[in-house]
Amino acid sequence: MAKPETITSAANPLLKDVRRAISRGALTEQGWCVAETPHLLEEALRSQCEVKAVLASESALGTASAQVRRLPVKLVSMPDALFAGIAGTETSQGVIALVKPPEWKLEQLFRPPALVVVLDGLQDPGNAGTIVRAAEAFGATGIFFLRGAVSPYNPKTLRASAGSLFRVPFLHGVEPAAACAALAQQQVELFAGVPAGASSHTLAGVNLTRPCGLVIGSEAHGVSRALRTAAHDVSIPTVGVESLNAAMAAAILLYEARRQRML
Amino acid sequence: MAKPETITSAANPLLKDVRRAISRGALTEQGWCVAETPHLLEEALRSQCEVKAVLASESALGTASAQVRRLPVKLVSMPDALFAGIAGTETSQGVIALVKPPEWKLEQLFRPPALVVVLDGLQDPGNAGTIVRAAEAFGATGIFFLRGAVSPYNPKTLRASAGSLFRVPFLHGVEPAAACAALAQQQVELFAGVPAGASSHTLAGVNLTRPCGLVIGSEAHGVSRALRTAAHDVSIPTVGVESLNAAMAAAILLYEARRQRML
Repeated sequence: MAKPETITSAANPLLKDVRRAISRGALTEQGWCVAETPHLLEEALRSQCEVKAVLASESALGTASAQVRRLPVKLVSMPDALFAGIAGTETSQGVIALVKPPEWKLEQLFRPPALVVVLDGLQDPGNAGTIVRAAEAFGATGIFFLRGAVSPYNPKTLRASAGSLFRVPFLHGVEPAAACAALAQQQVELFAGVPAGASSHTLAGVNLTRPCGLVIGSEAHGVSRALRTAAHDVSIPTVGVESLNAAMAAAILLYEARRQRML
Repeated sequence: MAKPETITSAANPLLKDVRRAISRGALTEQGWCVAETPHLLEEALRSQCEVKAVLASESALGTASAQVRRLPVKLVSMPDALFAGIAGTETSQGVIALVKPPEWKLEQLFRPPALVVVLDGLQDPGNAGTIVRAAEAFGATGIFFLRGAVSPYNPKTLRASAGSLFRVPFLHGVEPAAACAALAQQQVELFAGVPAGASSHTLAGVNLTRPCGLVIGSEAHGVSRALRTAAHDVSIPTVGVESLNAAMAAAILLYEARRQRML
């Protein structure tokens, strides 16, 4: 590895680009994912993602440098105060990796027997990332981020996924009608998570061992009309509470699919 | 309801007490729970908890006033800027209720067939509250917050529980040995959640229909040696990820218990 480059000015174009990506919850203008923390850098590397550059605060330079030793990765160092201006130190722990986003083809989301997650209007990046993590943990084969849902490239989504976004096949910004057509074409049966009592199907009563898709709606409004029409309603039986958090409900749907598939 | 009292000084003793409780994650010195948001006030009222007072920003006074109309609750109004100094406006939405904490006796945690949650070293109030919510949703009969775990009275715990802490019987600050003795005396079989692969028992393979307790360890170190000795290990089968978030793992354990009990 070459000697690290040093940045000393907040006006540096790379820093401005990264700062903007974080505040907008998007890719950088150069089209890279912002992966905060040494742990996410590690996950990117072990997931064979291409790491374009690593930004490190002076205090974290040793850590970052050890992580990319012998790899052809550009390492950029800067004073702690300057780093703090692009990312909270407590959230990024002094390390930001710029990672080439993984690219997936539609058919890669349907490894048989398909278990697909459809994020329909979900807004919170923390919820989205947590769902992606549960999706990997329970063997989901792919994820659709429909148009209108939070971006998978939001740095907070990536952080909450703890690296799972580098590995689970996904497509994003997909039109609902196009997603429904692709799912139907693959003979994937859709189940829409709805509040307890709103469905005659309870979770343990539906068969999730065949190719299926789990639709997770927005935190405020639930599953959209378009997706609900294309899916069976299914609810998690609960008592006493109005509803479960969207990420928790999704994790339980995924666990149940996995449980049934392991019987 | 009497006319609202108005506070105009940050030095007001009640405000100082509430501000301290929020920053320390504890009850106020007067021994009240800090319940932020109109929603939590509503939950306290519908849970028949005694509401000692309601603090409202001028902008939210109409909302708060409508909520406690005809109830013997002291309403305290203050300028928005002053309110913002005790609580983030986005987190509290201009309303803070001071609520008498519910009091429970040990035997109330074991309504047969008991399903008890044991929080063992769990540190994050958001996780704790989320677990309390899942506990209510899946019919848990009681919760032990062991000594060393986050406080149920941390305003963030209460907020994440979305009011479930007003209804699910719990004890807090309990010595691990005392909790184990009480659980054994009630013939409650303990299961400790451990990472996938660390246990020969997988979740769907254990019988959770008998009186049982689910032990949730700390985010960093898992279940303590004392509790692990008293419990069977159980793990949630996963692929690809090191571990699940503690709140998600707890929710899945609780869901599985509920599923088995509904068969």
